[in-house]
Amino acid sequence: MEDLWKLSATEIGSRLKNQNLTVELYATSLIDRISQRDCHVKAWAYCDSEAIIAEAKRLDRIPYNQRGPLHGIPVGIKDVILTKDQPTRYGSRIYENNPATGVDATVVSILRNAGALIFGKTATTEFAATSRGGLCANPHNPDHTPGGSSSGSAVAVADFHVPVALGTQTGGSIVRPGSFCGVYAFKPTWNMISTEGMSRFSISCDTMGFFTRTIDDLELVLRPFSIPLLDSNTLPPQTSLQGAKVALLRTHAWPKAGPGTQAAWDIARGILQNSGATVEDAELYTYFSRFPELTKAIVSKEAQSSFASYMSSAKDLLDPSIIQTVENGQRTDTTEFLKSYEEVARLRPIWDSWASQYDVILTPSVPDEAPRGLEWTGDASFCSMWTLLHVPVLNIPIAKGENGLPVGLSMVGPRYGDMNVLRAARLLNDALR
Amino acid sequence: MEDLWKLSATEIGSRLKNQNLTVELYATSLIDRISQRDCHVKAWAYCDSEAIIAEAKRLDRIPYNQRGPLHGIPVGIKDVILTKDQPTRYGSRIYENNPATGVDATVVSILRNAGALIFGKTATTEFAATSRGGLCANPHNPDHTPGGSSSGSAVAVADFHVPVALGTQTGGSIVRPGSFCGVYAFKPTWNMISTEGMSRFSISCDTMGFFTRTIDDLELVLRPFSIPLLDSNTLPPQTSLQGAKVALLRTHAWPKAGPGTQAAWDIARGILQNSGATVEDAELYTYFSRFPELTKAIVSKEAQSSFASYMSSAKDLLDPSIIQTVENGQRTDTTEFLKSYEEVARLRPIWDSWASQYDVILTPSVPDEAPRGLEWTGDASFCSMWTLLHVPVLNIPIAKGENGLPVGLSMVGPRYGDMNVLRAARLLNDALR
Repeated sequence: MEDLWKLSATEIGSRLKNQNLTVELYATSLIDRISQRDCHVKAWAYCDSEAIIAEAKRLDRIPYNQRGPLHGIPVGIKDVILTKDQPTRYGSRIYENNPATGVDATVVSILRNAGALIFGKTATTEFAATSRGGLCANPHNPDHTPGGSSSGSAVAVADFHVPVALGTQTGGSIVRPGSFCGVYAFKPTWNMISTEGMSRFSISCDTMGFFTRTIDDLELVLRPFSIPLLDSNTLPPQTSLQGAKVALLRTHAWPKAGPGTQAAWDIARGILQNSGATVEDAELYTYFSRFPELTKAIVSKEAQSSFASYMSSAKDLLDPSIIQTVENGQRTDTTEFLKSYEEVARLRPIWDSWASQYDVILTPSVPDEAPRGLEWTGDASFCSMWTLLHVPVLNIPIAKGENGLPVGLSMVGPRYGDMNVLRAARLLNDALR
Repeated sequence: MEDLWKLSATEIGSRLKNQNLTVELYATSLIDRISQRDCHVKAWAYCDSEAIIAEAKRLDRIPYNQRGPLHGIPVGIKDVILTKDQPTRYGSRIYENNPATGVDATVVSILRNAGALIFGKTATTEFAATSRGGLCANPHNPDHTPGGSSSGSAVAVADFHVPVALGTQTGGSIVRPGSFCGVYAFKPTWNMISTEGMSRFSISCDTMGFFTRTIDDLELVLRPFSIPLLDSNTLPPQTSLQGAKVALLRTHAWPKAGPGTQAAWDIARGILQNSGATVEDAELYTYFSRFPELTKAIVSKEAQSSFASYMSSAKDLLDPSIIQTVENGQRTDTTEFLKSYEEVARLRPIWDSWASQYDVILTPSVPDEAPRGLEWTGDASFCSMWTLLHVPVLNIPIAKGENGLPVGLSMVGPRYGDMNVLRAARLLNDALR
């Protein structure tokens, strides 16, 4: 039997449309793959084969002319996002024996309405708010972290359990595991996709996003979302890298870039230059240097209302780092905190206007390949400013590090420049392969 | 038998603590009241007497030393806020036969952990996003609207069905029904109480708040919330109106103020002056004139992701005004929309700094008493700028209009000046009664 699990969502979608594949057959192949692999990588917090097959059969019975754009496409759902028919445990001991169920998050409803097969729940760090790893391991080497907090989603896609998975990012929780696991990992503009039904950490930073193995699959899964685009103030989309204006942007975090990231950097530069792009080096060190402090002030203060219920009723079951974050927020002077809001609101349009000069902006995703050990999911220094800036960021797998693990780079753009980022990523991708 | 339903939450709390009342007896009194009154006012979307009594009995069995600060206090929950044991229908035909259930909103968890009796679900306009009234009527005269969108919560408290109810505000959905029904209606600083588990309309404006019949009850119900306070940049709290610096702030909406609001205005001015306060008249017309346009741009654009699922799968079941709001958002130029974010971020600290000069700021809540008819829940012109500014606003019942219906005024403050607003409201309230 052909290894259907190897195919992309786009290929599967096309076969399902041409009536030479059933959702059930494809789902069976994925379940087989998971049964062989998940003992090594522990991507799933919940995955019920019988329920998946039943749902696959239901999808197969839907007449061809009534099928949605994601008909039969399996999607893994990070376990901090509500699903009406599957338990949500938030990676938390509080919900271990008492999971939430009965309600779909808005993003899950949209996927379901489009015909997606809601496959199961993927491993997450506690409430997507800590960098303490669990059992979930990097499929390229299970002694290394897969990154977090969307650990299971990145792994499930990278290890060919499902072609698409949902993640969330408040600091670097989509881009970092995407880079560590070698997959496309997209955090769109803030609030472009509703976070209703996802556990709240920081209202100004929490963002919903996706993992896929190809750009085509990313564009496919974004289809059912009504995505507002930047209608002006950007360059027209490039159809080729020839003559494209490219920035290689190091930011304040660059001193943390290790050999893996530097190798990816050189590869990207070489490809861009060979493709006829005009490559500029940029740093914006002063601009970005305020972001670590701004992120800390805003996230920790906003975490107060997000965790208020658990802090009062189940503090002993919370990870100490969450308690520390909330308590940092309590100690932050409110007037200073409000100034952080104003400052970041001033900084956002400055970024948009700088970014709009370029067709392509590349910046590191992570310091290096995934660190050894599962305890720590890694550093978000290269990611968190994009989250607070509310801008689109897409991890593109580029190179291998010294231990043979993947390293990606991030393509970024101005707010609502999401489609230009995807188009530019496709050009770079075509040049890379 | 004594009419327990007439008592405030504070009085009930004290009797429960003194062991001369059971939650069951009190709940029975409220259920009797509702059975006599709700046929006239239709405050409840869901209210199950048997489940209430069972929960009351459970609360009565909790040992005295293990009881929370809201032990036995009944709270009505607006039907756009998730409750794990009661259906949520969002005032929407989409959920009529298929309600959401199984999950508690964060605010409901906090109330439940504090011992509150989650009483039932109160009537709301569709997704708290329209001004189309339903069957819910004003208890002071059922031919008049109770206001919206938190219609049922305001009515349930005003008509003595429960002493406390939860509401939500995106434009004027707490303050307006509070004024029309003659109760205290408090919209705290944005994100002071998590909106996780409430239906999303506009992430930048959606705010959770409360209805009560007394200031004491408002302070009581706020107790279990960890509320960050403005630590500097405001005057110390006044202990008397004598010498207090007061602003009577008309804003850009003042031309809409009818005789009821003008009567309340004169009463408040008289009381404040007689109490020895220094009363200044203020307008800030130019400052506020941009807010209607900013609110429209931000709310309609943000509504796109909030309603994306319903727009794609159940558009025919959505109120035309919601479709129009989302389509307005789709037509709004994204760059212009982003400029609205920046503009309001610039305007917020200007307000904070102006507001911090005063001990008390009063401004109208509504144009006048509740209009006749149930079709339209009224005008939010006096309210929506406070929501977008993220500042605390508290409706205080002051006067009666020409038809004998209540008219309130709003006390407002700088962001996180919530406790000062409550303290000032208490002083005004004491002077009024």
